[in-house]
Amino acid sequence: MNEYFYKCFNCSKEFSSEIIENEYHYLCPACGTAEKNKPLIGVLEVVYNYDKLRRIISRDKFLNYGPGEFWLYRELWPLQFLANKEIVKGIPDEKLERLALNRSSFLKFNFEDFPIFIQDETRNPTLSYKDRASIITAIKGIQLGVKEIAAASTGNAGSSLAGICARLGINSHIFVPKNIPDAKRIQIQSFGANIYKVNGSYDDAFDLCLEVSAAKKWYNRNTAYNPLTIEGKKSAAYDIFISSKGIIPEKIIVPVGDGVILSGIYKGFQELFLLGWIEKLPQFIAVQAEGSNALIRYMKSGKFEFIPAETIADSISTGAPRNLYMAADAIEKSGGRAISVTDDEIISAQKIVAQEFGILSEPSSAATMAGYIKLKNENQINEKDKILLLITGNGLKDTNSLLNWNVSPKVLSYNEWLVTLDVK
Amino acid sequence: MNEYFYKCFNCSKEFSSEIIENEYHYLCPACGTAEKNKPLIGVLEVVYNYDKLRRIISRDKFLNYGPGEFWLYRELWPLQFLANKEIVKGIPDEKLERLALNRSSFLKFNFEDFPIFIQDETRNPTLSYKDRASIITAIKGIQLGVKEIAAASTGNAGSSLAGICARLGINSHIFVPKNIPDAKRIQIQSFGANIYKVNGSYDDAFDLCLEVSAAKKWYNRNTAYNPLTIEGKKSAAYDIFISSKGIIPEKIIVPVGDGVILSGIYKGFQELFLLGWIEKLPQFIAVQAEGSNALIRYMKSGKFEFIPAETIADSISTGAPRNLYMAADAIEKSGGRAISVTDDEIISAQKIVAQEFGILSEPSSAATMAGYIKLKNENQINEKDKILLLITGNGLKDTNSLLNWNVSPKVLSYNEWLVTLDVK
Repeated sequence: MNEYFYKCFNCSKEFSSEIIENEYHYLCPACGTAEKNKPLIGVLEVVYNYDKLRRIISRDKFLNYGPGEFWLYRELWPLQFLANKEIVKGIPDEKLERLALNRSSFLKFNFEDFPIFIQDETRNPTLSYKDRASIITAIKGIQLGVKEIAAASTGNAGSSLAGICARLGINSHIFVPKNIPDAKRIQIQSFGANIYKVNGSYDDAFDLCLEVSAAKKWYNRNTAYNPLTIEGKKSAAYDIFISSKGIIPEKIIVPVGDGVILSGIYKGFQELFLLGWIEKLPQFIAVQAEGSNALIRYMKSGKFEFIPAETIADSISTGAPRNLYMAADAIEKSGGRAISVTDDEIISAQKIVAQEFGILSEPSSAATMAGYIKLKNENQINEKDKILLLITGNGLKDTNSLLNWNVSPKVLSYNEWLVTLDVK
Repeated sequence: MNEYFYKCFNCSKEFSSEIIENEYHYLCPACGTAEKNKPLIGVLEVVYNYDKLRRIISRDKFLNYGPGEFWLYRELWPLQFLANKEIVKGIPDEKLERLALNRSSFLKFNFEDFPIFIQDETRNPTLSYKDRASIITAIKGIQLGVKEIAAASTGNAGSSLAGICARLGINSHIFVPKNIPDAKRIQIQSFGANIYKVNGSYDDAFDLCLEVSAAKKWYNRNTAYNPLTIEGKKSAAYDIFISSKGIIPEKIIVPVGDGVILSGIYKGFQELFLLGWIEKLPQFIAVQAEGSNALIRYMKSGKFEFIPAETIADSISTGAPRNLYMAADAIEKSGGRAISVTDDEIISAQKIVAQEFGILSEPSSAATMAGYIKLKNENQINEKDKILLLITGNGLKDTNSLLNWNVSPKVLSYNEWLVTLDVK
């Protein structure tokens, strides 16, 4: 077992892994609260002994791993590992291969003569970034001896957990709001998850999932609530570090809904910094939809205010970002900023990402490209900066969004086409 | 340039690569014909100097490549390679990474206590096997100096070519039938392809694409018609050989529409045999839908008869398999067979693949699982046999098929769920 403890982001109290894990705590036992329509208080962070790790693992060895060789970062996971063939305790190696992330995720493009880097998460096992969190929490659940894992979801987190659990052979329970789009619901159900549609909002589903999980002793993967979701999501920082051969991007543009992806990647880079492997952190640019901009408002006013969210980018649509405080802190400490984009800008960016880069992305992912364009138009992008966009989810998870800009083409007869195309 | 020539599958005449490529021949210049509603005659095969290659490349070296390290098989591609940083002539290395196939494609599972292997093509760049053919033909086109590539398609081949061309920065032209499902059309259009919807069938689109490509001097990627589609599709054989560390499967179950995937994989294994690296070929089990079983009928009667196809598995729905004769020959020479499954069996298998293996597959891909179950029920599967199922396309490319077996769940209030779940 790796050496680590849990620390509360709110009150800074520290807790041993035994207390947190064996007693199934998720939020801080001292100050944690999960209130409806509010960010979580007392989100826990996993802290390792970085001074000790500096002596055990070397930067060069780490950089020699292939991108996506997830299990080789073993000293930096709060999981149990074994020395023999079965690397991760309780998970046969052949099952680990089923969980492998996209190993060609770090791509370089040019856009209007500027270089641009994409971290492409659209080819993960269930085609989204959420797999990073689902994999780590599901394995933790197995190592804790549970056979049932639960999550509340508006779509992607649920389909991710359902798919990962199917690959691992354990049961999942997904709590969804009444208005979940059909395509997302189908993905969750296809993987054989138990689905509970509540006559209410995502917030209701979140609360119901907490109450039922506690009563049933199901392991809970609600985002931010379970600190391992942040641990799983930190892993992209390692992949980016390895893919860029240690010359990390100056700016990373991240879509923000609940703020867990941003907090996670920030934590990953912070760990690389604490290990002495990078000299400074990348700047984080958070992109929100105009209709779902709680983080931006909080960073301006210092106050959280709940306003129901409305945007085409459903994966970043939330009135109460669950990990608001940690995300805001990460942006500030990195010297970054949070910006918003309109739904129209998102759709336009989705088209650019597909046609210029050949990547079909969800609206929430395309938001990063919309943010990039906005910064570029404001002359905030330097040609020499290494800028990375995080593309978090595949566009095929939400084909309706693609209908917005792909009008049905004209139908002509064989001979009409020959004439139109000037062949005859 | 590698040493290779083209050989006609029908009349066995041989042609130099200069004649075929520089004059833009696709089918055999001596006997080739592409008639409506009929299999192609005179499909060409690329033939290498295997005796010479035996001396140049070693089995051990080949087995040491990682699965999916496509460009390392350079001696076995009809393309131009360079020795320096830019490996494939005309394609910067950073573009090659964008074309990388799923590198965790060879997966082992258990099903009803029997081991079962899956070759998972659902995480390729555009989420289907077709990328293998699109990548090789698009690169060939670039090396021939063309900037426009065309294909006829019912959906997947078109979205694949469109996506691969977007990643390479060249133009694509996709000819589709009037009744193309909206989801497939959207994928093609999203990548910025020029789309031509013809008031007719796939056969009309196929013919129109041939006529327009010839007049416009666009490079043509119609399946089987362009021999490089078979070359691209052979590559899975190499990946399977490498992934299985040379202990290849005894049986490979492949979905068959036009028969190009099966012909391609057979060719790949045949090449490994000619190189002396495997002792015998795997048996090929072709699976067709009952409503689209031209190959099965041909293998029984020795005669091709056109019957319009009808099946939920649209990617293998064709009344006239374009590569019928080569596919039938491959099955016979491998000692395999062709079987059919019903649409109901396909849907039931799609559910099993999703829930047991965590892989969302298209109906056409799930057909291989339906075929496996059929063989197992007939006691034709030996527990000790190494059996591999080819899963060719992601289920999200055809969400409608998933609607068949995922009925909308009940909606209950928060408190009703607590009572139903016995929590309160």
